[in-house]
Amino acid sequence: MFKKILAANRGEIALRVIRACKELEIPCVAVYSEADAESLHVRLADESVCIGPAISAKSYLSIDNIIKAAKDAGADAIHPGYGYLAEKKEFAIACQENGITFIGPKPDNLALAGDKIAAKTAMQKAGVPVTPSSPGGVDTVAEAKEFAKEIGYPIMVKASGGGGGRGIKICFNDEEVEEEFPMAKMEGRTAFGNDEVYVEKFLTKPRHIEFQILADKQGNVIHLGERECSIQRRYQKLVEESPSPALTPELRAAMGQAAINAAKAVDYENAGTVEFLLDGDMNFYFMEINSRIQVEHPVTELVTGVDLVKEQIRLAAGGTLDYTFDDLNLRGWAIECRINAEDPEKHFMPSPGTIEDYNPPAGFGVRLDSHLYQGYELPPFYDSLIGKLVAFDLTREGAIQVMKRALKEFIIGPIKTTIPLHLIIMDDDEFKAGNFDTSFITKYVPEEDDDDDDDDDDDDDD
Amino acid sequence: MFKKILAANRGEIALRVIRACKELEIPCVAVYSEADAESLHVRLADESVCIGPAISAKSYLSIDNIIKAAKDAGADAIHPGYGYLAEKKEFAIACQENGITFIGPKPDNLALAGDKIAAKTAMQKAGVPVTPSSPGGVDTVAEAKEFAKEIGYPIMVKASGGGGGRGIKICFNDEEVEEEFPMAKMEGRTAFGNDEVYVEKFLTKPRHIEFQILADKQGNVIHLGERECSIQRRYQKLVEESPSPALTPELRAAMGQAAINAAKAVDYENAGTVEFLLDGDMNFYFMEINSRIQVEHPVTELVTGVDLVKEQIRLAAGGTLDYTFDDLNLRGWAIECRINAEDPEKHFMPSPGTIEDYNPPAGFGVRLDSHLYQGYELPPFYDSLIGKLVAFDLTREGAIQVMKRALKEFIIGPIKTTIPLHLIIMDDDEFKAGNFDTSFITKYVPEEDDDDDDDDDDDDDD
Repeated sequence: MFKKILAANRGEIALRVIRACKELEIPCVAVYSEADAESLHVRLADESVCIGPAISAKSYLSIDNIIKAAKDAGADAIHPGYGYLAEKKEFAIACQENGITFIGPKPDNLALAGDKIAAKTAMQKAGVPVTPSSPGGVDTVAEAKEFAKEIGYPIMVKASGGGGGRGIKICFNDEEVEEEFPMAKMEGRTAFGNDEVYVEKFLTKPRHIEFQILADKQGNVIHLGERECSIQRRYQKLVEESPSPALTPELRAAMGQAAINAAKAVDYENAGTVEFLLDGDMNFYFMEINSRIQVEHPVTELVTGVDLVKEQIRLAAGGTLDYTFDDLNLRGWAIECRINAEDPEKHFMPSPGTIEDYNPPAGFGVRLDSHLYQGYELPPFYDSLIGKLVAFDLTREGAIQVMKRALKEFIIGPIKTTIPLHLIIMDDDEFKAGNFDTSFITKYVPEEDDDDDDDDDDDDDD
Repeated sequence: MFKKILAANRGEIALRVIRACKELEIPCVAVYSEADAESLHVRLADESVCIGPAISAKSYLSIDNIIKAAKDAGADAIHPGYGYLAEKKEFAIACQENGITFIGPKPDNLALAGDKIAAKTAMQKAGVPVTPSSPGGVDTVAEAKEFAKEIGYPIMVKASGGGGGRGIKICFNDEEVEEEFPMAKMEGRTAFGNDEVYVEKFLTKPRHIEFQILADKQGNVIHLGERECSIQRRYQKLVEESPSPALTPELRAAMGQAAINAAKAVDYENAGTVEFLLDGDMNFYFMEINSRIQVEHPVTELVTGVDLVKEQIRLAAGGTLDYTFDDLNLRGWAIECRINAEDPEKHFMPSPGTIEDYNPPAGFGVRLDSHLYQGYELPPFYDSLIGKLVAFDLTREGAIQVMKRALKEFIIGPIKTTIPLHLIIMDDDEFKAGNFDTSFITKYVPEEDDDDDDDDDDDDDD
């Protein structure tokens, strides 16, 4: 087992990693930017190192600073959390070169996860269903229109290097392709340093269903059931649950096997998520592999009882998987609401500030992962996620009731949060019936109302 | 279902009841003494009523004031929590007479639970094993010694009306009987208004194992597995867990059936706990029925997934039990540490004061039931229980690791708490091996060190 682990992140996920290390009795080093000196992850870590100024590019995204911090502290492993460097192949390689274990997938897995065309090709070879798409990059508008004729509108023009909804343009006809194609290329170049785009069939109103997988270094791959993540605002998940109200045991088995096949096809290691789209006829299509721990991993933990971060650490240290999905004694229903410091009434503008009034919910069925505390000054520089509230009960109806109670009990003042929006969602008849798809949120948040600025310097972590 | 429920208690259990009501969407009225106006249960209730001064006898123990508060608020049911009026037959009758449903057992159940001799007789008739004891009250020292000769020393001289360890004298020989017998009678008279005592075989170093039961008004009784409660200090539980490391599936089935038989023998209704002693040869003996929700109920909730307080409310409203223990999908291990505002280094003296520094633990496997918040002024008038920290994992070893992590994360300053003692217990080799009995704590807390004053005006709620 590792002697010391560095948590290369901030906020709730840094805390999550620190907690797992403490339970494994492995000392854990926190890193922090100058803006995060008073952060709870610094307070609860065994030791901590300042890695630079507030701006992420010079702290949480600085491979050099983080590797130096790890070496200075004598850490022999790094857990990257999600976002920031979690899926940067260069970071995993830098760890390797410095004799530090990267707690996550192999560099090749990260490279493939970032290359959507190559990933899709690999999946097709492994027999995993994928949405019809161009066999490779598409260079011109004419080529894109040609391919659209073949698979039928609507289509997406997608940046090969994109993720989390960025670099995606949806086109319903030739005119829109003419307009959006150059935009997608430009966005890819600006945001991801890669202007290759490809064309993919756009499924209208699909569900977003993802499978948690674990893979050891011996080639064993298991899945731990699905997460339903269809409630999204501009491709950013808002509410996730496990299991999905849409899956039958048969469909779960088929999709779970496809997820395992997908991971095996790319010789995957450690924890990952295989994302699928599910259409109205219950056909599922591989979308991508997320090669990190996901924000929404707690819903899987609550229904399986498995601590996924501890499993990540154990597997990175060479541990083997001696159980499968069928050995897990799944029970009940878990729902997560992402609490963001945003004002839903003002186009989801970030709402930083000092937390003057704070009452975290607790009691039966409630789990809260948050780095907030009373008196904490929420810095304006980072992602707006300030807490993940998860509710559990034996039934979905019960879990919704626990969530409503917990949301009402959760006091975070005076800043604005997404709590009121979550209360509206929990009371929605279609949500309660489990009858929704990725277009759900548009009835409460008109798309034109969205704040289109994205000046967040974080990596996407959705 | 009820229109409005009054929670006739304070502290964490009042909060527990309020949360259950909110999830059932039933308005909940809090009551509070003048010393509790700033309490979290008042803040989170839908409405609240002051029922008197700080002293419990004139507020939380005042049947008249509480019935009046319920009638004024239009509550058609009262949940008594534990302690205070929870097991007072007169209170249950007063509710009845005022057309209010008492969420708990029938008055006759409460009367029987308070009469240990009658309860034992009923159990013997139902074939539930009981410890050898005098067939009824014992009037004289000579009679007590005579009976001791019959069953062998050590024996206990116990006040018939006692509970929670009070009114119990352990005697190893005739001389000790001569000394302790009059003391037990006096204690019974002073503390419980009843000087009847009886004699019972004293088991040396037994385990305390109790079974959670639920009973509906139609005569269905189920059990929900056991709780291991052997870690006690002067009969006050400190650490509880479910399941017990001592039970085999066969013994669990036998004890569970005995618990059901015990409840059926007395025509029991609602939630209750059947307490047993388990000796070194795995013989079990009925001890008593606790006719209320127990402090330690969350460990059962975490391994069964069943919300016991919501079940209490549902059953009180006439709901039926349509499941049994075998239908429950038990999973993992749960451990509860009772966090008391006491100074373990100063004979467990109460340690009230203002909570200036507060960090509640959270994350994977952690449940905290507490009425504390930063800035809360802990009044000196009440029970010292300030929080129940419960840890869950798939294995007992994992649950201990989660608990240790959570205890270390739990900051409650500047008052003194039992957290350091719990950390010592969690690191104890015998505890870790599951190899302990009710004498466990004496190795860390010598009995002569105990603070023998008990000026707490609360009812026992152990």
